[in-house]
Amino acid sequence: MDIMQKAVEMHRQAQGKMKIVAKVPVQDTYDLSLAYSPGVAQPCIEIENNPQAVYDYTIKGNLVGIVTDGTAVLGLGDIGPEAALPVMEGKAILLKRFADVDAFPICLGTKDVDEIVRTVKAIAPTFGGINLEDISAPRCFEIEDRLRQECNIPVFHDDQHGTAIVVGAGLQNAIKIVNKKPQDMQVVINGAGAAGIAILRLLLQMGYKNVIMCDTKGIIYDGRQEGMNSIKEQIAKISNPDKLKGSLEDAIANSDVFVGVSVANLLTKKHIDSMNENPIVFALANPNPEITYENARAWGVRVMGTGRSDYPNQVNNMLAFPGIFRGALDVRATDINEAMKLAAVEAIASLVSEEDLCEEFIIPKSMDERVAGVVAKAVGSAAIESGVSILFQQPRLRV
Amino acid sequence: MDIMQKAVEMHRQAQGKMKIVAKVPVQDTYDLSLAYSPGVAQPCIEIENNPQAVYDYTIKGNLVGIVTDGTAVLGLGDIGPEAALPVMEGKAILLKRFADVDAFPICLGTKDVDEIVRTVKAIAPTFGGINLEDISAPRCFEIEDRLRQECNIPVFHDDQHGTAIVVGAGLQNAIKIVNKKPQDMQVVINGAGAAGIAILRLLLQMGYKNVIMCDTKGIIYDGRQEGMNSIKEQIAKISNPDKLKGSLEDAIANSDVFVGVSVANLLTKKHIDSMNENPIVFALANPNPEITYENARAWGVRVMGTGRSDYPNQVNNMLAFPGIFRGALDVRATDINEAMKLAAVEAIASLVSEEDLCEEFIIPKSMDERVAGVVAKAVGSAAIESGVSILFQQPRLRV
Repeated sequence: MDIMQKAVEMHRQAQGKMKIVAKVPVQDTYDLSLAYSPGVAQPCIEIENNPQAVYDYTIKGNLVGIVTDGTAVLGLGDIGPEAALPVMEGKAILLKRFADVDAFPICLGTKDVDEIVRTVKAIAPTFGGINLEDISAPRCFEIEDRLRQECNIPVFHDDQHGTAIVVGAGLQNAIKIVNKKPQDMQVVINGAGAAGIAILRLLLQMGYKNVIMCDTKGIIYDGRQEGMNSIKEQIAKISNPDKLKGSLEDAIANSDVFVGVSVANLLTKKHIDSMNENPIVFALANPNPEITYENARAWGVRVMGTGRSDYPNQVNNMLAFPGIFRGALDVRATDINEAMKLAAVEAIASLVSEEDLCEEFIIPKSMDERVAGVVAKAVGSAAIESGVSILFQQPRLRV
Repeated sequence: MDIMQKAVEMHRQAQGKMKIVAKVPVQDTYDLSLAYSPGVAQPCIEIENNPQAVYDYTIKGNLVGIVTDGTAVLGLGDIGPEAALPVMEGKAILLKRFADVDAFPICLGTKDVDEIVRTVKAIAPTFGGINLEDISAPRCFEIEDRLRQECNIPVFHDDQHGTAIVVGAGLQNAIKIVNKKPQDMQVVINGAGAAGIAILRLLLQMGYKNVIMCDTKGIIYDGRQEGMNSIKEQIAKISNPDKLKGSLEDAIANSDVFVGVSVANLLTKKHIDSMNENPIVFALANPNPEITYENARAWGVRVMGTGRSDYPNQVNNMLAFPGIFRGALDVRATDINEAMKLAAVEAIASLVSEEDLCEEFIIPKSMDERVAGVVAKAVGSAAIESGVSILFQQPRLRV
């Protein structure tokens, strides 16, 4: 039986990969008088009088809603909210496993941007944070932007920032191997979807100056007419400072780094040959990358990362989102801002020691138990320093 | 330390009375390949191809959303969604404890009826059922009506029907003691809120003919001008067939049953004296009933029920909602209809045996472990018989 059939069997037997259990006794009427009527009235009254007390008396402070509309699930596309539920449950148990976060799937029966924003705002009082998941681009950008502005809890679109943060961490270690500096390098990102856009933005934050994004129409530049949308207009203004025009080939020539979030088997030997010395490639198309690991190494790629667990340097969001939410919740952050994302990059990169660092090991393993705790601590500290923590006492770190 | 202070301490220590845990192993990459990527894609695809498979592969089939806007919480009133969360968590762990239902609180940051309906519809794909809770009247009636029509999962407002079903069960046993028949009796319901309206409707279903509802303006009758709203207009048309007018006193005179869902210490000896022989009183105002148990018995009430656990015959919703949701979920009911509510009434009443039945024991104890299972079985059967079950195999009863 192959892995897909085994997965179906497992899902059928479990009928849900998560369950809800009581943390307090509910055996007798005394228990109920504390957990329910009449005792429960007292914490209710205290929260009414002091809204912050909801973090002391309820699940809110440890609870993340995993929200999707099912429009961009895995590589499957727009499969709808019910079909997306197994993925969201999976995400929920990862948050529990690696960061002791209680997470709950919310699969939305609407694809309308206004309706999604309204719905998430309406349910926000229950949650300490919102993880947006598998929402198609470019809708995901507007949804996240509006929710970050309108909610007083952190909202984080993992397909964007989770991927970007792990790429950022990997790249930070990779350039130590090739001994280059961000400001001197040309980086090409192929694919202008959720992940590509977020990677671009994060790399600019990290000090990269010359980042060029390509889509199926070629290089995105300020003034391009064909195949633009509002987000690409923004990208054109902040990237590609030399206003390079042309095809993907033109972008790759003399570049130092290629990041692919696009389609399988795109890169040829000619592409690699045209890059600067010691090329770095992150080929993240799933399940089959833009260039195979074997070809990349044979053709001279110095450092190679993929999305796959069966090759070195797996770019896996699991390294980012559990610790990021743990850190944000621990300090009651009202946002997951750029400072917190950069702190996560540093934290993940720091877990590869100087002695261990090599072409085949630039990113911690996805199951590395240390990662979530280190990321949480860094993210929580960054939240406090950047002024988005509303915790008035020392954080109780839980991982 | 009194019970309220103990409850606060317990809530502070627990920081949430529930948690989410994984039902499947997530220890190594093999586990993740089944529960998450890449294996999870297969159940997703199967659900996309056959929407009913969501019940086989996910938590949906055992999951109830407990939805409130925080406008009518306990006796506290409109305390807001955050302050309502401890109550919703309490309800969730009761559903788990008594019926093995996974239940999750959704506290809404809006009081707008359209917005509440839209939000619940939008999040419905995740859930197998929706329990509306602590939403103020008369908004609760429109919200429930619209959601029942527009959702394909059962929607049940417990403050209405849970209370009505337990009153109905108690009354069914009480009239055996006094040897009266529903069609011969005059019943007065004082209080035209959520519970009162639902009790009236249920009693009509149970064969009661002469039910009279009073509010603060006195008897509700067809044609009354003062203090009416759309729901009271409906009530006027289906109740009070003799078009009795006047005060609460006029309604109580020559009545057989008084059901109070109103205010404390309302009933006097004169009221009780004016009732027919062997008066039955359900005095459900909380925490202090319309008449004390001691006064009721001293003044000649034959059978007395209250909402209190420290007196006989406690009318407690816990006897109804866990089994009702268990039964509805077990047969994948698309609704909780009148047949299912009546089945719940019969099931609860049946748990008081003929030998045990007496003035002081007409309703099972709220912690009686048998109740949820018996109610679930009856409700599930009624769903199948009334054609609202979409389960194509024999139900797997879980309690």
